Amino acid sequence: MIVAMQENATEEQIDAVIDAMVETGVKVHRTTGAAQSILAGVGPTSNVDLSKFEVLPGVLYVHRISSPYKLAGRGFRPEGTVVEFSNGAKIGEQKIAIIAGPCSIESREQVNIIAACVKAAGGQFLRGGAFKPRSSPYAFQGMGIPGLKLLHEAAQANGLLTVSEVMEISQIEDMLPYTDLFQVGARNMQNFNLLRELGKVRRPVLLKRGLAATIEELLLSSEYIMSGGNYDVILCERGIRTFETATRNTLDLSAIPVVHKLSHLPIVGDPSHGTGRRDMVAPMAKAAVAAGADAILVEIHPNADKAYSDAAQTLYLDQFEKMIAELRLIATAVGRTL
Amino acid sequence: MIVAMQENATEEQIDAVIDAMVETGVKVHRTTGAAQSILAGVGPTSNVDLSKFEVLPGVLYVHRISSPYKLAGRGFRPEGTVVEFSNGAKIGEQKIAIIAGPCSIESREQVNIIAACVKAAGGQFLRGGAFKPRSSPYAFQGMGIPGLKLLHEAAQANGLLTVSEVMEISQIEDMLPYTDLFQVGARNMQNFNLLRELGKVRRPVLLKRGLAATIEELLLSSEYIMSGGNYDVILCERGIRTFETATRNTLDLSAIPVVHKLSHLPIVGDPSHGTGRRDMVAPMAKAAVAAGADAILVEIHPNADKAYSDAAQTLYLDQFEKMIAELRLIATAVGRTL
Amino acid sequence: MIVAMQENATEEQIDAVIDAMVETGVKVHRTTGAAQSILAGVGPTSNVDLSKFEVLPGVLYVHRISSPYKLAGRGFRPEGTVVEFSNGAKIGEQKIAIIAGPCSIESREQVNIIAACVKAAGGQFLRGGAFKPRSSPYAFQGMGIPGLKLLHEAAQANGLLTVSEVMEISQIEDMLPYTDLFQVGARNMQNFNLLRELGKVRRPVLLKRGLAATIEELLLSSEYIMSGGNYDVILCERGIRTFETATRNTLDLSAIPVVHKLSHLPIVGDPSHGTGRRDMVAPMAKAAVAAGADAILVEIHPNADKAYSDAAQTLYLDQFEKMIAELRLIATAVGRTL
Amino acid sequence: MIVAMQENATEEQIDAVIDAMVETGVKVHRTTGAAQSILAGVGPTSNVDLSKFEVLPGVLYVHRISSPYKLAGRGFRPEGTVVEFSNGAKIGEQKIAIIAGPCSIESREQVNIIAACVKAAGGQFLRGGAFKPRSSPYAFQGMGIPGLKLLHEAAQANGLLTVSEVMEISQIEDMLPYTDLFQVGARNMQNFNLLRELGKVRRPVLLKRGLAATIEELLLSSEYIMSGGNYDVILCERGIRTFETATRNTLDLSAIPVVHKLSHLPIVGDPSHGTGRRDMVAPMAKAAVAAGADAILVEIHPNADKAYSDAAQTLYLDQFEKMIAELRLIATAVGRTL
Repeated sequence: MIVAMQENATEEQIDAVIDAMVETGVKVHRTTGAAQSILAGVGPTSNVDLSKFEVLPGVLYVHRISSPYKLAGRGFRPEGTVVEFSNGAKIGEQKIAIIAGPCSIESREQVNIIAACVKAAGGQFLRGGAFKPRSSPYAFQGMGIPGLKLLHEAAQANGLLTVSEVMEISQIEDMLPYTDLFQVGARNMQNFNLLRELGKVRRPVLLKRGLAATIEELLLSSEYIMSGGNYDVILCERGIRTFETATRNTLDLSAIPVVHKLSHLPIVGDPSHGTGRRDMVAPMAKAAVAAGADAILVEIHPNADKAYSDAAQTLYLDQFEKMIAELRLIATAVGRTL
Repeated sequence: MIVAMQENATEEQIDAVIDAMVETGVKVHRTTGAAQSILAGVGPTSNVDLSKFEVLPGVLYVHRISSPYKLAGRGFRPEGTVVEFSNGAKIGEQKIAIIAGPCSIESREQVNIIAACVKAAGGQFLRGGAFKPRSSPYAFQGMGIPGLKLLHEAAQANGLLTVSEVMEISQIEDMLPYTDLFQVGARNMQNFNLLRELGKVRRPVLLKRGLAATIEELLLSSEYIMSGGNYDVILCERGIRTFETATRNTLDLSAIPVVHKLSHLPIVGDPSHGTGRRDMVAPMAKAAVAAGADAILVEIHPNADKAYSDAAQTLYLDQFEKMIAELRLIATAVGRTL
Repeated sequence: MIVAMQENATEEQIDAVIDAMVETGVKVHRTTGAAQSILAGVGPTSNVDLSKFEVLPGVLYVHRISSPYKLAGRGFRPEGTVVEFSNGAKIGEQKIAIIAGPCSIESREQVNIIAACVKAAGGQFLRGGAFKPRSSPYAFQGMGIPGLKLLHEAAQANGLLTVSEVMEISQIEDMLPYTDLFQVGARNMQNFNLLRELGKVRRPVLLKRGLAATIEELLLSSEYIMSGGNYDVILCERGIRTFETATRNTLDLSAIPVVHKLSHLPIVGDPSHGTGRRDMVAPMAKAAVAAGADAILVEIHPNADKAYSDAAQTLYLDQFEKMIAELRLIATAVGRTL
Repeated sequence: MIVAMQENATEEQIDAVIDAMVETGVKVHRTTGAAQSILAGVGPTSNVDLSKFEVLPGVLYVHRISSPYKLAGRGFRPEGTVVEFSNGAKIGEQKIAIIAGPCSIESREQVNIIAACVKAAGGQFLRGGAFKPRSSPYAFQGMGIPGLKLLHEAAQANGLLTVSEVMEISQIEDMLPYTDLFQVGARNMQNFNLLRELGKVRRPVLLKRGLAATIEELLLSSEYIMSGGNYDVILCERGIRTFETATRNTLDLSAIPVVHKLSHLPIVGDPSHGTGRRDMVAPMAKAAVAAGADAILVEIHPNADKAYSDAAQTLYLDQFEKMIAELRLIATAVGRTL
């Protein structure tokens, strides 16, 4: 950590700051300039709350000089993480993965039709929501575990893996037999108890970026899971909240190259939640692949307009097939396959 | 709901939209203008996802014309809600309540000193965190239920009520004997399962606005609790995330008059989280009272710089006493007491 | 316009709102529901400030039902606008244009080297800043018209067109002989006097989206130029301000398909300003082309680290050449050329 | 400046960064830790673009350690700036100033009525817009200099000073005889040419914070004016753009104590633009005074609903009188007068 003192800071103030730094366990080097003193704290500070130094008298700025995360940092695995699944599918390698399915699991027939479509398009993952967090208490809340079983059957019948959102610690055990990849939704990105429990499970986790979360905070959340011993974490950019209202969220595609630079974890692009509009999904999916996404997650439904949830952003099956064909061309153009 | 069609929309497109509207259970009135057709859907739409109409061919805009919340709306209780506690204390009346305490419960001695200070300052509520959600997995995570018992003892000894954050459904039962007011933190504002469970408990809930939540979403979250039968909900403005970095969050004080207009629920101002800086707490607390806050929530600690969490925004006890005296003057100026 | 009244609105309130609507020149249709009255105002409202109806007693919501812009709307030219330049170059057609150059014009040698590089890469436009708006008054402020002459000479020698930012009405006439495409910077997107003057000039305008501007506001600003008779407007997405700090701005690539849907105007992607980081320019340029950008604008410099301004986001010439080759593959993948 | 290198940075990379730092004119001190090297650059860096160091190979973070502004900093005038006007009125002292008037000057009668009302309420400044920047080209654009003359006459007749917005360098000279305080609007906060010209004028400037501007950027813009020799700058918080739509902007009142801490310049609160809603003006004006504002700026009109611009946020004259009486009580409560 670096503490830059104000130009008119007194020696008493400087000494008080040095004492406070030393108490956190760092060694302090002081550089006295013509106008200003700089205090460099050398040592482990990832569990120190730096903001408390900002309000000490005489302090101008406080800056971190080391990453607040360790296991998630690129340096921990410079070659990058490839998450492997039971059937040999991978996320994080040269081949871009396809994750698709309905927002909500609605019926056996619905998931069977969709599973066949995902398989036919060359996809590996069937995603469907069993528990639905809805902003209105009066909206459809999901089929629960019975729905998840339907998803699992449909996936098995088509050689696919399942992805479903876990919202509560208590759901983990019930979901485990039917879930190949646990999704943590944007609203739970900082549900640290849930993350900690998922760190103890030996099952990959798809961690979605929160609506108001910085990329650094996303990496810190992944650290919660990894610090429990579960290194199979896949990140997901799904849009952040900004002042723009033409799209439901603002898909921050620059998160993809930023994560690839700062971390070894794979990152998925989700143009469905990222835009909230069916007609924007294909162009933004193409952009995500061009920006380097390791997988694409999209919502599809044979009767999209009548989907129980997220209808506006759900693709019809023929739109999905057409889009996958286009994505394949983009993948080739960036030296990958799909 | 109102659907405004594009100027060049075809009759087929208009008919398809009318059909989709009728299917959701509303009656449709069509106004055909020189250039544009307008479709008004009359009937209950609070559980309809309007965005799915936005992507239908030929549609220009879709607008809601009734509030998405019912129980939280001003119309439900025009006279306003006053939440009463066991010892007669109230939030939502002419007298402004004081809620204060440490970010984290650290020891018996710490909470005893603070409880005496809150009592002496005329406060009614002792707040302290037993379970700490921290963005870094390496930071202090709280004392848990044993800490909460210490808080409860200190409150009892001083005739105060306790406020503490609940982060998990499983914690509710354990916390119930020691908690007079359950706090739902900003990160859990849309943890709908937790909200639903709190709706079944007969204990008041302090619901904090999420970092990226609109005021409408805050009211929708309160609706989750109220729809379970628990009408004792108190809202809290604690800052939203914006591009400004001089303060930790941007305290949106206009939320106070907006909530008073749209809803009957009381609203609390939290200048500690709202600014993240000790030196900004007093001016923003004064501003919150001036804007009409029904209570003030502040973090205090006898040794603020050494608090286990949120040290930068925690007031020393003498700073708190001085601030309360100033707030009392502001309260008088706006025709209230404190 | 649609005015939705509150459920408890009185007849007097409804009548007062109807009167206020009629005064703006619209015809009012009233729909009286079981609980709520809806007032539809039919007629021209693009010059009516709808927000004044929001604060009338008894009003719940006010919504616009027609686009606030006319000339910029897709309906005005469904086939799309192609801007043609003197030498036959075009922006808005199947071929994606390349606009590149230094942030600041620094010397004859600098612009000559860059012009040759842009030409060799297949580019059509040489861009360079003569007047530099800098957030610090102590930073380099640009070479002015003498610099622009150097840019023009270099462009002419290589068969390129020039692009340069105009910051003041008084600069238009001086810049006219040397500028083929006037750039309006993000900070001037709502400098309406400047836009109005540019509407009178017969020279294409590149209008950059403001840091805090919605896409609707960008289109309204283009309407200012077009309403003066100058229809050769090209829009530019260059990043918006959000809470994320890993990149200088957040490049909102969804603006590209949104503009293509709402408007007939071409739109350019600017990954240099959009990210502010040299290492993020290539992936985001690829993403912009994949999302449908009609041109790419990038900052390049033979000695990028020593550029007088925007050094961090400026590509070295070899990085630029490599990137263009990659973009060409993406262009092919989306059925275009570059 | 401080450059923190990555843990795996090579000696070559470190040397290259040191060379680049030395070239900017600073002296470099290197601290070599067990894992990481830290480079401290001591010397003047206010005109150095630090971001260019962020993209050098091996660099982790780059931080500024001195304020980017000098003249605007608190240290330049620790006692604070009081701006004095010709008639003895002051802004920045213990007495809080009142600035009020219509958004647009509409007629002699209108400004005369308003001037008398401002005077009666104890105000010192009559504000009115002569040139109106409107987001739609079809909206009312202002009366220009003839309107400003009407404003000046009305002010003179009532012993008030005039405040009006300047939008163009070319307007300065024409406005000078009739303008006691030049307002720079939010959209022009970074119109650096205009700021520089105002730095040469000996007339106070009211500088409004931009919609997407940080407080640091606001202070840097004030530096532009001050560096020309005009130290009579008054800042204004008028709301920033966030995701919240219940209010037109989000009034960031914490800017008031932040500016008072970082700078010696006075700061004004503008609850009219800050909320955009008449019914929110009074509570937020009270909050602004409680937070320490040095003046209050409000829009008033005898026939507010029919104001040519900003009608929704304009107070009726009786609402204004009532609010001033309330503000007086708050001013007393914070130890000031009004």
